[in-house]
Amino acid sequence: MENKNDIDLGAVFLGPKSENKKVFAKNMLRMLDDHAQWRKNFHPEDPTVIKLDEFEKENYKRSNIRLEETLTELSSRLRTSMMPWHSPRYIGHMCSETLMPALLGYFAATLYNGNNVTYEAGPATAEMEEEVGIDFCKLMGYDPTIGWGHISSDGSTANYEAIWYMRNIKSMPLAMKEVVPDLVAGKSDWELLNMSVCEVLDLLDKVPDKLDEIKAHSASRNGNEIKKLGKLIVPQTKHYSWLKGADIMGIGVDSLVPIPVDEHFRMNIDKLKEAIDDLISQQIPILGVVAVVGTTEEGAVDHTDKVFELKEEYAKQGINFYFHVDAAYGGYSRSIFLDEGYNFIPMNKLQQKYLEHGVFKNPNLNWPSEDVYNGFKYMCKADSITVDPHKMGYVPYQAGGIAIKDKRMRNTISYFASYVFQKDAKVPDLLGAFILEGSKPGAAAAAVWTAHRVLPLNITGYGQLLGASIEGAYNLFNKLNAVKEYKVGDKIVEVYTLATPDFNMVDYVLNLKGNKDLAKMNELTYAFYKKVSYFTQPYANDLILSHTQFSYDDYGDSPVGIVEKCGMTKDEWDKVHTITLLRSCVLSPFLNKPEVFKYYSDQMDKAIVEKLEEIFAE
Amino acid sequence: MENKNDIDLGAVFLGPKSENKKVFAKNMLRMLDDHAQWRKNFHPEDPTVIKLDEFEKENYKRSNIRLEETLTELSSRLRTSMMPWHSPRYIGHMCSETLMPALLGYFAATLYNGNNVTYEAGPATAEMEEEVGIDFCKLMGYDPTIGWGHISSDGSTANYEAIWYMRNIKSMPLAMKEVVPDLVAGKSDWELLNMSVCEVLDLLDKVPDKLDEIKAHSASRNGNEIKKLGKLIVPQTKHYSWLKGADIMGIGVDSLVPIPVDEHFRMNIDKLKEAIDDLISQQIPILGVVAVVGTTEEGAVDHTDKVFELKEEYAKQGINFYFHVDAAYGGYSRSIFLDEGYNFIPMNKLQQKYLEHGVFKNPNLNWPSEDVYNGFKYMCKADSITVDPHKMGYVPYQAGGIAIKDKRMRNTISYFASYVFQKDAKVPDLLGAFILEGSKPGAAAAAVWTAHRVLPLNITGYGQLLGASIEGAYNLFNKLNAVKEYKVGDKIVEVYTLATPDFNMVDYVLNLKGNKDLAKMNELTYAFYKKVSYFTQPYANDLILSHTQFSYDDYGDSPVGIVEKCGMTKDEWDKVHTITLLRSCVLSPFLNKPEVFKYYSDQMDKAIVEKLEEIFAE
Repeated sequence: MENKNDIDLGAVFLGPKSENKKVFAKNMLRMLDDHAQWRKNFHPEDPTVIKLDEFEKENYKRSNIRLEETLTELSSRLRTSMMPWHSPRYIGHMCSETLMPALLGYFAATLYNGNNVTYEAGPATAEMEEEVGIDFCKLMGYDPTIGWGHISSDGSTANYEAIWYMRNIKSMPLAMKEVVPDLVAGKSDWELLNMSVCEVLDLLDKVPDKLDEIKAHSASRNGNEIKKLGKLIVPQTKHYSWLKGADIMGIGVDSLVPIPVDEHFRMNIDKLKEAIDDLISQQIPILGVVAVVGTTEEGAVDHTDKVFELKEEYAKQGINFYFHVDAAYGGYSRSIFLDEGYNFIPMNKLQQKYLEHGVFKNPNLNWPSEDVYNGFKYMCKADSITVDPHKMGYVPYQAGGIAIKDKRMRNTISYFASYVFQKDAKVPDLLGAFILEGSKPGAAAAAVWTAHRVLPLNITGYGQLLGASIEGAYNLFNKLNAVKEYKVGDKIVEVYTLATPDFNMVDYVLNLKGNKDLAKMNELTYAFYKKVSYFTQPYANDLILSHTQFSYDDYGDSPVGIVEKCGMTKDEWDKVHTITLLRSCVLSPFLNKPEVFKYYSDQMDKAIVEKLEEIFAE
Repeated sequence: MENKNDIDLGAVFLGPKSENKKVFAKNMLRMLDDHAQWRKNFHPEDPTVIKLDEFEKENYKRSNIRLEETLTELSSRLRTSMMPWHSPRYIGHMCSETLMPALLGYFAATLYNGNNVTYEAGPATAEMEEEVGIDFCKLMGYDPTIGWGHISSDGSTANYEAIWYMRNIKSMPLAMKEVVPDLVAGKSDWELLNMSVCEVLDLLDKVPDKLDEIKAHSASRNGNEIKKLGKLIVPQTKHYSWLKGADIMGIGVDSLVPIPVDEHFRMNIDKLKEAIDDLISQQIPILGVVAVVGTTEEGAVDHTDKVFELKEEYAKQGINFYFHVDAAYGGYSRSIFLDEGYNFIPMNKLQQKYLEHGVFKNPNLNWPSEDVYNGFKYMCKADSITVDPHKMGYVPYQAGGIAIKDKRMRNTISYFASYVFQKDAKVPDLLGAFILEGSKPGAAAAAVWTAHRVLPLNITGYGQLLGASIEGAYNLFNKLNAVKEYKVGDKIVEVYTLATPDFNMVDYVLNLKGNKDLAKMNELTYAFYKKVSYFTQPYANDLILSHTQFSYDDYGDSPVGIVEKCGMTKDEWDKVHTITLLRSCVLSPFLNKPEVFKYYSDQMDKAIVEKLEEIFAE
């Protein structure tokens, strides 16, 4: 079925075969014409600056030739070795072709080149970023009049910003005790270190004149305060930016407490509870808990509902912690759960809504599980959420993002520079005062804004696109499980998939039938990866994948399940302690079409056999 | 004079009146055609995915209309309120139109949308970024086989990265003492905290197998170590990112020691020495010293030569500190001192070289002073340098940058993620492991690369462009000093300039003749600023400036000079303790042309009188 408000995915991408080239070129030229005429019409009376006779100068001509020749080289180098993300033959990293609206929005706004650090340097694009922030709130289930969001340079910096928030907020009560002791009278240091974000912000609201002085006694001013703030709990499946971030933000990598994951590669909630209890018993505060929606290597969706449940439970005991969801990868998928009014669709209405809007071509797809549904639903309970438009927003780099539940949080990290900011000016005048970055491209905001206006962040827009991506991933997952093995000359190579995808990523391994040696399986999988990756000339390749490795250091014993599935013992795991997997993020907007999937699936089978033949011949 | 290798500035910008529109459009379409055909020719046998009959579907048409209408709104909003940076009527922030090669490079590469976090996600653009890093080294006088550089999201994150380097390097010797005590046997903690960067790196080289363990005992792992590392010395004129950075990086804003500036708004070297002596006498280590080349509000160039001299002097006493130059703004200007072989031109040959290459139209310009010359020359002695292509590189946002003197420094901040990185892979395979950001646009690297290839970073390329900018600033400075006052009805309004520009920025104030009241002068200057800024509709305005404020909190008594120049006493300063100035960064590539400057100078005079009339009539 198709609803008339649903976006047509064939209309919003340039297309694997440049099917929409005419639309693209026409609008690109329109944006350039508009800009060029805008330049001319700013004071039409002003004369030209580059005169016609200058075009005849030898140096003009030489410079022009140099420009043309350099662009020729640029284009050649790009075409020689950039990755063909536009093709469904590419199912590696979380990359695909990007949305035409985003590309054209980026192009158009780059001509004006605003800097959204301050309203003054890009009024139109600063307003668009403010609107995108509201979009983020609606996507995440935050009240846009209370919450706030902005575009960051990437997901890593958004995660650093989350640490910045939790660190500075956590340190405020101890600073209050020094500056305005009456405000927190009767509270022990332990209680001060265990206040909720909301309590802290409410207290700050009571003493607006003392804010600067309180900050001057907090972690932002004095690095010594940081060590008191406790531990940051993350799942084993965390992105590596959490390690970098702990170093960068001065809390130290040692402050991270990684929690084992379950067989779905979701944070194990029992282990989380144990870790919290253990810290409390040692009187170590909890700086924050991070859940991941869309883990980088498995696409797993953590139980945000259960983390929230724990949070509520501990709050009753006076133990509070900051709750962040790292949905850099999975965040946009929340749009698949939102109806046209941006309401989260009840579980029992979901399949009907999917049918109405044709979210999945295959009505029996049976996604999501209740766990995954709840994982997406309860994101709205987090204090902040990382969400990257340049991942599942199908927007070109670089556009990360973060949304916060309560915009008052900004006051705990703000800095002002006299030359950029007006006193008493309102956001978005002040963006640079409230974020990690200094300069930031207005064009990124325009790109995201344009994409959001063409594809609303609900079931009619991005929901359609995410549906196509998830269905493509399930098509691949089901296909690999159906194929089971490839006949390669006189050998049989088995394929084993990891867990059922929570989202749009499929991980799998290749093993020579009968092999019980994990190291050898890893060797084969890695040798295959080298055949279908940047180790070969990508433009000449038939299939391009990415890979990953789960090591004991990062994952503990979580990979034992897949090892056993491949017919090996835990002893084998204990011996090798690392497993190499192929990794396919299925982002193509078109692999949900049965005929398209069939074609590329056949190509994939052919490529797999050919590459394995090459390996066995070597 | 003109040398045949010199770039023609009229050939590399779209132009204030879109004079080069044809060149731009032609190359833009060429890049799109190349890309579109590249898509089609990747496996020419693969069928189209969006079929012709889909173009006839109602939802395709509706989606297409939505795209067109959204782009219409986007263009309208951009044209309504973005700043007309292309026009010489805009002399406010450090913004101007950007280079055609950079814009076209950005456009072209965005179509391929590489992510330079890892070679695998953008092979061609990752290589370009590596080449840009070499360019940065050549620009800064670093040996490109020893040094290294990369593009950062902006100057602020580059500055944070510098703090990251100095913090982690400074903490290594104490960690060595714990892990490999023999390596630093006989050294006191004070000595360990005062080792030079090179000594630390040499020691680490001796124990490659212990690196991870040493890091595990350093500040990156344990936030408690940070407080031991000492103070970070900055000039009063520092960018506000140093405050944010001190907070973010966990050293705390209190660890900053601001040094007063002299009458040129350059860091006062005597005061710097006093501060160092004072810290040493308290046995407080010096984490680092930052000098600025091109201060944000004055364009001042610090005495890097004298900072280096001090550094050498203290090294003899066993006191070492990290030396960073924040040349986010001024960095590209070093190209004006480099001959075609990238040698720094001797002071006594400079004017002759300028004549040969027509760097200045006015042969009597007399730039630079010896101080400024040395300020640029000795940047090469710093351990790291921030340099932003999106400022004086005339490249669109966002493209900041940093260069480091010794690439071994990277090992002190590196992180690896198994899914992205190959073991033993070489840089640029690993960029994300060595920098603050996660994802980063290959397009930014392509833009900078294209600009650098068309305009080499020496006197024939960027030197020409920076020359035009500096000459434009001197034209404005000299003009304001020649005008001295404007007759507005029955009133006379005087104009006073701050210091002679070290670079391309002119700061000035407006004062009603006879007024001795600083607050009133500030009021007039600010009222005028509101008339020539985003407070009005910029597209309808005749002149657009930016402004700044120097307050006692930030500047101490450094502004007394300009206050007295305006005929007021120090008492008046003591009473008000803030001064408001107009601020013109002169970036136009064309205000060095006498006839162009004359035209816009007349327009400026006219606008000044008209706006003042409006103010007095209110």
